[in-house]
Formats: sequence, C-alpha cells, structure tokens
Amino acid sequence: MLGNFTFYNPTKIYFGKDALDNLKDELKNYGDVVCLIYGGGSIKKTGLYDKVMAILKEANKTVVEDAGVMPNPTVDKLYEGIKIARDSKASLLLAVGGGSVIDYAKAVSVSIHCKEDPWQKYYLDFKDVDNEIVPVGSILTMAGTGSEANGGAVITNPHQKLKIGHVFGPNVFPKFSILNPELTYTVPKYQMIAGIYDIMSHILEQYFSGDDDNTSDYVSEGLMKNLIKASLKAVKDPYDYEARSNIMWDATLALNTLVAMGKETDWMVHMLGQAVGAVTDATHGMTLSAVTKAYYEYIMPYGLHRFKRFAINVWNVDPTNKTDEQVAKDGLNEMLSWMKEIGLVMNLTDLGATLDMVDDIVKATALGGGYKKLNSDEVREIILASF
Amino acid sequence: MLGNFTFYNPTKIYFGKDALDNLKDELKNYGDVVCLIYGGGSIKKTGLYDKVMAILKEANKTVVEDAGVMPNPTVDKLYEGIKIARDSKASLLLAVGGGSVIDYAKAVSVSIHCKEDPWQKYYLDFKDVDNEIVPVGSILTMAGTGSEANGGAVITNPHQKLKIGHVFGPNVFPKFSILNPELTYTVPKYQMIAGIYDIMSHILEQYFSGDDDNTSDYVSEGLMKNLIKASLKAVKDPYDYEARSNIMWDATLALNTLVAMGKETDWMVHMLGQAVGAVTDATHGMTLSAVTKAYYEYIMPYGLHRFKRFAINVWNVDPTNKTDEQVAKDGLNEMLSWMKEIGLVMNLTDLGATLDMVDDIVKATALGGGYKKLNSDEVREIILASF
Repeated sequence: MLGNFTFYNPTKIYFGKDALDNLKDELKNYGDVVCLIYGGGSIKKTGLYDKVMAILKEANKTVVEDAGVMPNPTVDKLYEGIKIARDSKASLLLAVGGGSVIDYAKAVSVSIHCKEDPWQKYYLDFKDVDNEIVPVGSILTMAGTGSEANGGAVITNPHQKLKIGHVFGPNVFPKFSILNPELTYTVPKYQMIAGIYDIMSHILEQYFSGDDDNTSDYVSEGLMKNLIKASLKAVKDPYDYEARSNIMWDATLALNTLVAMGKETDWMVHMLGQAVGAVTDATHGMTLSAVTKAYYEYIMPYGLHRFKRFAINVWNVDPTNKTDEQVAKDGLNEMLSWMKEIGLVMNLTDLGATLDMVDDIVKATALGGGYKKLNSDEVREIILASF
Repeated sequence: MLGNFTFYNPTKIYFGKDALDNLKDELKNYGDVVCLIYGGGSIKKTGLYDKVMAILKEANKTVVEDAGVMPNPTVDKLYEGIKIARDSKASLLLAVGGGSVIDYAKAVSVSIHCKEDPWQKYYLDFKDVDNEIVPVGSILTMAGTGSEANGGAVITNPHQKLKIGHVFGPNVFPKFSILNPELTYTVPKYQMIAGIYDIMSHILEQYFSGDDDNTSDYVSEGLMKNLIKASLKAVKDPYDYEARSNIMWDATLALNTLVAMGKETDWMVHMLGQAVGAVTDATHGMTLSAVTKAYYEYIMPYGLHRFKRFAINVWNVDPTNKTDEQVAKDGLNEMLSWMKEIGLVMNLTDLGATLDMVDDIVKATALGGGYKKLNSDEVREIILASF
C-alpha cells in the first residue's frame, strides 16, 4: 500500500535537441545579474559555453562566472561560490554541467543569505533553510544524479573526510532545467557508465525497501528495464540518440521523488559509496558499483521476496522449479553480469582504494538501510568484502 | 527515442489517509472567499462536506456554494457557475468530488474573467486562455480522470450534442489536490470500475502510438500492471486500502502528462467514447470500454509491433512458436477477459445505445488516431461493430 506522501515537483523541464532555445524566455523571469556556474571547462571545448553566453548577452544580462566546480564539490569551493554570488548580487544561479555543478549551485543558493556556517547548519546539523533562496536554473550535460529536478546537494569536506548530501525541499529545486541528450554525447565513457549506474542505484535503493505492492515499485521496474536496454546500446554507440535520450529522462524520473512516493527507501549503497568517495575522491557512480555486490548479497536474506520479484520482473528470470533463494540469486547475478558488461568498476581495489582506508570509510558511513539496518561492524564487513 | 517536450506539473499532491489535514495550511495562500464546488450531494452523506466546511470556517473563509455539478457537466451549468463565482468574487474554487467536478471547476476558472462566450472560445475554437485565471484546488473522491493534476476540462453541450475536452496549460492545473483513497470506498461499484477503465484507457491511448523504444512506454507498462492487479483486488474488496491507494495514484500518473512525454499519442477511444457520451449521457468510463474491442481490433494491423510488446510485457503472453499476429491477439484477448472479469460494459447495446443514434455519434466524433488516422466511414464501422 502507499503510505502518506506529498508530491510536489515544480521544476520545469525542457527536453530535446532544441531545449536550449527555451533559455531566452526563461531568463525574463529573473533579474539582471546571472552567476554562471560550471566545472573544469569542458563546456568551453564543446562550444556550449559560447552558446549560453550569447543567449545571456542577447538578454542583456550581466554575467559573473563561478568556474572550476570539481566532481566532488568541496566546502572550500562552496565558500568561494557564496562570496562570488554575494558580491555580485546574483538573481539567478545558472548551473551548466553535470550533477556536481547543479548540486553545488543549490548549496550556494541556500547559503548566500545564510548567517550561520552552511556546512555546519545544513550538512552537520541537517537544519532546514529559513532564509532567502537565490533561484537555480540548470543546463544538464551529463545524465546520472537527477539533481536537475530535486533538492539534493552533496558537498564534500576533505578536511573532515566527510561527503554528505542534504535533500532540500521543492523551493530549492531548480526552477527550470534544460536537457538536451546530445550534450551528453561527449561525456567520457567512464563518466557515462558511472552515471548510468548512479541512475540504476537510485532506483534500486528506493525499490529494495518495504513489503507492499505499490505503484512506485511498478514504475521503478519500468525505469530499470528501460535503463538496462538503453545502456547496452549507449556503450556500443554513444551517439545513439534513442539510448541517450532514454537514459537522460530515466535519470530525472529516477530521482525527482516520483518513485519514492508512499514507500520506505534504503539509500545504504549511497551512504557506503559517499564514504568511499570522501576518502578516495573516486567517481561517484563507481563508488556505488564497487560496493554493490557485497551489499546486496548481505541484505538479500532480509528482503528475499523483493529480490525474487526483481529477478522475475526486471531480469526475466524463469522461477520454474527454483527455490526463492535461487531465483533471487539468479536475479542479482543477472544484474552483476550487466554491470560488468557495460564496464563498471566492481570492487574497491579496482577503484584504487587500499585496506588502510577501511577505518576512515567505516567512520564516514552514515548508518541506515532498508531491509536491514546496518551497524558499524556490518558496514566494515561489507566494505572488506568489496575489496 | 524521446522527442522534444516540456514537462511541467506544478500541482501539489497531498496523498493518504491524513491528506485533508493539509487543507488548512493551503487555504492561507488564498483570499477570503472560497467557492465550494460539488456534485449531487454524496459528500453530504459521507460526512466529507461537514469536515471541509469546518476547516473553511476555522480558516475564516466566506463560503459560496456551487452544488449540483452533474457527471457530464453541461455548458448551461458552466454559465451558472461562472455567475456564482463572479458575483461572489471568489479567490479560490475548491472542487470536492470526482473528475467531472474538477473538470467543471477548471472550466469555470478560465471563464470568470473571459469576455467572450467560453463554450465558443475554448471548446469550439480551441483558443488559449488570455485572461486572469481563478485558482482551483481539489479534494478528490473518485479515481479515474486524472483531472486532479492536469489541465483537462471536458464540457458537454446537450443542445449541440457535443462533448468536448480542452486541455489547458499548467497555469490551469489545480494548485493543490487532496487524495485520500479512503474517500473512494463509498463510490458505487459501477462508478469504481468505470473509473478503473478510464485510467486504463488513458494509459492505452498514450501507449498505442509511436514506433520508438522510450521511457514513457516502460512507465506505462508498469502502471498498467499495477492497475490490473489492484483492480482485481478492489472489485473483490472495495475496502482494500492497498488496492484503492494504488488505483488512485495510478490514475494521477496516467494523466498528469508524465507518460505522454516525448511521444505521439492516440486518444481515439476517448474521441469515440465522448461522442457516445454526448448522445447517450452514459458514464464516461463505460463509453470507453464499450468501443474498445472494435477499436483495437481495427487498428491492430497498423500497430502490430506495439500490440505484440503489450501482450508480452503487460499480459505475460508467451510468444514461443506464435506469429506476431497471434501474440498480439492473445494480448488483446487477455485484456478483454480482464475487462469482463471486473464487470465493464463491453458493447453499446448494454450501454443503452440504439442504432438510430449512430449518425449522431459519428457526427460528434472528432477524427484522429495513433497507428491509424480514422475517417468518418471507419468511425461508423467501429461504432457499428460496437453494438
């Protein structure tokens, strides 16, 4: 059954090859100063920077740049961004990039008018926003995090070896997001498949929880089947528009709150992966894939009925003459085979982690879970089994 | 592949047993005068009217009532509602009821400040809204139309024997909708199953169009599987909260624009059904079920690949050693069996239509279609085959 929920997703999505054409009209809703936020400069190589600047210029906007947002945006970078936005009195934060850039823009947006230290307030104390928010718009260049239509904003504190996500409310969601699948063509393959697994993990971590039969899980199964098929095409041909467009929209629906409605969620793979990311600075999606086998093998006995359903509905495992355990295992093995086939990193060793990092990873892992609430010893066991 | 689209669904949904608790806070966003719109008075029998009035009174609202909205709201009733809302200077139209009541509220909302005749402007000339809109909120008592989270508003003109839907933009969507599945327990069984098939038809009419492999169709398949399972439980036990909550949320997702994104749609069953409704005043969902067999049998050869996919993915038809035609037919037959099992009206005779109505029905049918664009002769053929 579906529990009580509020569904409110006010982000306006412009999707398709011509999506950028809508930026001009959107800019009319905001003031004169736009803070253009982007990453390491790939948008300059691809020509997107020039296109966006031309539109901003045509709209007579004063543009202030906040460049150099790193894949795991740091708290130091956040402080820098707050200063840029404050000094310029920006009325719109326009994030151009992948999930990290958009996450970062959201963290800046809630911090500009915040009188306390935002890291302490939002990331250590998990307090709500009680100050003015500067609106964010996004132009997405990579499919994965779903940040384009939610309130999530992950920030890393390398000094404290912590990587923490705060899920802000709908008032922090991007006001608009521009999604052109063609912009994802030039994402390096390693990043593309990391993004694909980030999507899959978002769905899995909402799916593997709860005992009810409900709408959200049926939608999740559809999204997973779509993603699996599209991913196999995209790794063969990155310029396959059908595959890339499906992956991009799948990513948004996987984490725009839709498939969490009315149900419990898990999120333990993200807690483990973020801890690995805090210690290693590895690519987010790969930190998730590296701990997946050990995690799901560990929790399978506690959620056997759901693993069985997953095997049959998502992986077309034939349950005839098999025990529930065998069906469940077959399903997980199908998923692991798919993960290997698309080229994901399957363990922490291949990710560059070493055993001397284990203590820090365990310490950085927020405890939780769906079918099984983990304690620190169990986290350690799963991390060790992931090497 | 996904074509260009804009996804924007700003309706805030409060879902669950305690959903009505949110009305009080929502009312703070609107002025003093609330126009309470409802139907034939079943909300008085169930006690919902008293609960809503108590909340409105507690919020110090002046309440103006617009009661007696009929299942197929007429243009005459629309004129009456416009006058009530105008005279009272209502700042919120609060629709309490099923899809007809909410549709009607939306039609009033765009007409209060409209200087032309709204029937002519919106329903005959299909013009956009260019005047002020009075906001609508809804408390839903029946699952089916999806009106609680979209811009659709169907109005019937019995003088002209026309039943026409205008799909208004997101500015006409209800600002908030309150969905408590328990409120649907008391819906008569005939209305409940009509609503269930309205949901199914919404999904089918978006699914049976286009040749692409895309996200929206995978989500549709999930929603259909969910609906089929839940409907079989709900007809056995109307008080099954799991089933009723799944049906209610499925209804919203089936027509909140989500599963139409990036793809072609059909909508011909609704065009046929609405024409039947205009001539017979029959229950909407039953007008759809009564023409379903003849329509899908007619278009099957034109969309065979999709009918095959439907059979396998939604109805678990085993395609081994079968031609595509056989797989497709098996799938449709599975659906027809399910329709009979839950008790739908399967032909126009059982709906009370007679052959002398055929000319009027054909005349009232807007032409269109997905895999096959129909002409009037083909519409006549399908209508005749539906007797």
